[in-house]
Amino acid sequence: MAQKTRIAVTPGDGIGPEVVAEAVHCLETLRKRHDLPMEWTRFPWPSHAWHEENGESMPADALDQLKSYDAILLGALGDPGPVDDPDRYLLPDSISLAPLLDMRKGFDQWVCERPARLLPGARQYLADERAKDIDMLVIRENSEGEYVSQGGRLRKGAPDEVATQMEVFTRRATDRIIRYGFEQARLRAAARAEEGRTRHFRTLDGKTCESQVCIVTKRNALRYWGDMYTEAFEEMAKQYPDVATHHELVDAACMKFVQAPWAFDVVVASNLQGDILTDLAAVLSGGMGVAPSCNLNPDENGMPSMFEPTHGSAPDIAGQGLADPTAMLFTTARMLEWLGRKDPAVAAAGRELFDAVAADLAENAGKSRGTQEIGAAVRERL
Amino acid sequence: MAQKTRIAVTPGDGIGPEVVAEAVHCLETLRKRHDLPMEWTRFPWPSHAWHEENGESMPADALDQLKSYDAILLGALGDPGPVDDPDRYLLPDSISLAPLLDMRKGFDQWVCERPARLLPGARQYLADERAKDIDMLVIRENSEGEYVSQGGRLRKGAPDEVATQMEVFTRRATDRIIRYGFEQARLRAAARAEEGRTRHFRTLDGKTCESQVCIVTKRNALRYWGDMYTEAFEEMAKQYPDVATHHELVDAACMKFVQAPWAFDVVVASNLQGDILTDLAAVLSGGMGVAPSCNLNPDENGMPSMFEPTHGSAPDIAGQGLADPTAMLFTTARMLEWLGRKDPAVAAAGRELFDAVAADLAENAGKSRGTQEIGAAVRERL
Ligand SMILES: CC(C)[C@H](C(=O)O)[C@@H](O)C(=O)O
Ligand SMILES: CC(C)[C@H](C(=O)O)[C@@H](O)C(=O)O
Repeated sequence: MAQKTRIAVTPGDGIGPEVVAEAVHCLETLRKRHDLPMEWTRFPWPSHAWHEENGESMPADALDQLKSYDAILLGALGDPGPVDDPDRYLLPDSISLAPLLDMRKGFDQWVCERPARLLPGARQYLADERAKDIDMLVIRENSEGEYVSQGGRLRKGAPDEVATQMEVFTRRATDRIIRYGFEQARLRAAARAEEGRTRHFRTLDGKTCESQVCIVTKRNALRYWGDMYTEAFEEMAKQYPDVATHHELVDAACMKFVQAPWAFDVVVASNLQGDILTDLAAVLSGGMGVAPSCNLNPDENGMPSMFEPTHGSAPDIAGQGLADPTAMLFTTARMLEWLGRKDPAVAAAGRELFDAVAADLAENAGKSRGTQEIGAAVRERL
Repeated sequence: MAQKTRIAVTPGDGIGPEVVAEAVHCLETLRKRHDLPMEWTRFPWPSHAWHEENGESMPADALDQLKSYDAILLGALGDPGPVDDPDRYLLPDSISLAPLLDMRKGFDQWVCERPARLLPGARQYLADERAKDIDMLVIRENSEGEYVSQGGRLRKGAPDEVATQMEVFTRRATDRIIRYGFEQARLRAAARAEEGRTRHFRTLDGKTCESQVCIVTKRNALRYWGDMYTEAFEEMAKQYPDVATHHELVDAACMKFVQAPWAFDVVVASNLQGDILTDLAAVLSGGMGVAPSCNLNPDENGMPSMFEPTHGSAPDIAGQGLADPTAMLFTTARMLEWLGRKDPAVAAAGRELFDAVAADLAENAGKSRGTQEIGAAVRERL
């Protein structure tokens, strides 16, 4: 029998606990029905709870508590504080959202993945009907680059203040994220071939490939790492002659995400540029209400990956049972598929959950339903 | 009589000379008709011409040659090379586009402005009908930040290479761009009031204002300058109690540009984040075919501002008379309005040109017409 899969559930702030409750209900249904070797532990951790104690929004030993799990399922961060005493507890984003960055760094979750597909029922923001054909995967470098937090403020607050922020990119992390992109491109092409929906991409020298990787940089202005990214990409591409390659500058990439997103397959970008592109990708697939986000450590070194919906804690509707759990449920499905690398039954449960959420979305889009109602409707399909 | 206005015309590469020819025709028509004290000088400077001489894509003394002009009207950069010998002349973007950055830096054009309004006839990429109400001005800090070109590559090409890129922000440049944003917000509110289309923006404390400035940062990840920007913004806002203020993170801002762009008025962003947002703003106003871009030095210190369409040199259609000059003509109109700060007749000519191009666009959108045909149609309206 496969080893038991252990999940750390961190509901977080605002609507987090509400949408996580539906996710856990679905997990429970799937676990029972398929007798899955799977268990979970709840770490409530609203982000204001630890602030007075250690100045942070997680317990000081949070990463230690989480590190032995196979995955972390996170609801939402962003502390609205107790409604009756907002001044005391309202944390700035830089504190309440810090656990996201801490987990990514601490568990070396060097891949952030956000697929963009416009599923039936999801809101279509673009006028062009081809938006229905959007099918891309944005892969964000999640471990370094613009996010290394090096720099400072000279003469803070003075009229002649200078603030600096260093971007640091290593060839090693660049190579691994680019290789990951090419591998995903191959996997996607294989999956499409199986489903009979092969796509075609033309290379510059006129060859036709069934997948594509587009690297994004801003090398005409940020030349140092832009050049390194480009060289690493071109070298890696030689090992994947079956994958078409493409280069976009980040400004043009954002423009093309709006103008012709159906032309992309896999997109690889730096931490900040990937942050921007994954948010745009979320819009392309219908917006925050449906967008999952995966922070992965693919190294099989025992460190947990982290799964969170792209949306925030939505304090304005928290506690009212109004939040749409769809993004959270898609995120949970994605987590099961990821965990399923080691156990096909778990992967199958992930696909089952995905199909149930997608079917519910297609049938009920636009209806006004509460959190629990949507969760129950999805569970009925399982 | 007002002093003679002198314009340096740099057509550049690819379709640049073709669209610039139409712009110059229009300038000539307006000059004659209104007896405007205005003259121009052509600096052909295709970007490959100087490369073998000095490794650059402009003559070594280009800035010296240009500095006494009141404005620079630029066609497009990006060298496709002579079609019969592409290998010899094809310059990478980092060289052929360098003059843009050199001029911005050399002439301290610290404001980059791109208005976004979806004019009748322009292509609408968003499905929501409210896209017709889009009316925002994105103001990009154009002198420092991510574009200072400081950094390097340690162990270049080796597996343990480290590439760094420094972002440098000064409070002085931050203050001036934020102040510029607030001033523009007031001017826009005044102009709207005159046209009888007042807009309303709600402040956090429930007050209603007729204009808004949204500051964009990524302060939850790039904390040093993000905090400095935020502090500078909050302090400056005290001097503009009549303007509503708003803060967005760049990823959320990009998302909202697609989801609800009609909610924005003035948007102020850093060099790189502004680069991305202005490209998105270009899409919102119909795409590259219509988007002007202004690089301004508002200091009245004699240094020229530079006006260019957002589009590139489009080598694939260059030399065939197919390029749409609409963006170039809007850019020219914007230049005249800018130059008109000193001469109302010139400003009026700018508005006249704008109206003619807009009317032509509204009437003929979608028709397939050549460069000269569009230029002639616009001139007929002058
Ligand atoms: C909360 C923030 C630091 C984070 C990021 O920038 O990575 C968020 O925007 C995301 O995309 O997960
Ligand atoms: C050509 C390039 C360096 C430039 C920039 O990034 O500023 C361009 O994208 C622009 O927006 O004018």
